[in-house]
Amino acid sequence: MPLSSSSLFEGLSESQVQCLAPAFSEKQTGKGQLLYQEGEIGDRVYILKGGAVELLTSVDGEYELPIKIIRSRGGCFGTSVLVPPYTYSLSAKCAEDATLLEIMREDLEKVYAEDSVMECTIYKNVARHLLGRLRETRKELKIHFKTLFQSMQT
Amino acid sequence: MPLSSSSLFEGLSESQVQCLAPAFSEKQTGKGQLLYQEGEIGDRVYILKGGAVELLTSVDGEYELPIKIIRSRGGCFGTSVLVPPYTYSLSAKCAEDATLLEIMREDLEKVYAEDSVMECTIYKNVARHLLGRLRETRKELKIHFKTLFQSMQT
Repeated sequence: MPLSSSSLFEGLSESQVQCLAPAFSEKQTGKGQLLYQEGEIGDRVYILKGGAVELLTSVDGEYELPIKIIRSRGGCFGTSVLVPPYTYSLSAKCAEDATLLEIMREDLEKVYAEDSVMECTIYKNVARHLLGRLRETRKELKIHFKTLFQSMQT
Repeated sequence: MPLSSSSLFEGLSESQVQCLAPAFSEKQTGKGQLLYQEGEIGDRVYILKGGAVELLTSVDGEYELPIKIIRSRGGCFGTSVLVPPYTYSLSAKCAEDATLLEIMREDLEKVYAEDSVMECTIYKNVARHLLGRLRETRKELKIHFKTLFQSMQT
């Protein structure tokens, strides 16, 4: 089941995952479809069931810089809407036809309002997820820095 | 008080902050002193009381790339040790003589073992803090990308 394999729900018991499951809805999307735009105030988080989704950022509205492609079943994205200021920090576009599970933030909040341990586990997972993204982005930054530094020396 | 002004403890009540305060110890550090090294497994988180601390990353062990200078009273750093894999994601060096408040992760865990609401609030704050760093890093990445793109066109 993609929910229990998602890093967002790691550490939850099977019965906690069962409580969450009905709050998700499944969505089919076609290749090229934009799911959300960077900077938008967001109300839903996604988990990939099949296909592929690309995360992108706009550079001055002129270029689109690809950041990551999500292909793993259970891969989550849109998680920045769980954290103030509740906006999407990147844009998401289907790189292939995809099957997604989506949950509204307010529905997630309703489920964990009954279970503070679940809430805490999920926020620990969100923090770990964001730290992972931060590490990847810093790695990318170093590559750019090095390329730039070397091009200035030649 | 730097603890209550720290974003790490935002949303905690005055009495919750009072419970945390004895677990912190104050430390004076001199300009140039290395507090921790990127990649090290870490056991303590810091809050700035006075002075300035620079966060850096090493590029292939050849250059040191400055990422951020923390000068605001209450500014926190070393927070990545609260999240698996519990390592420092950057190095920290005193940019000026500084006064720091430090807390061991295990002491923080002991305090919030008694108070799951506190634990949850702190992890939400950690997630927000990491998202803030992620946004800054992506902004930086865009600047590098743009510079590189323009230098390739000239």
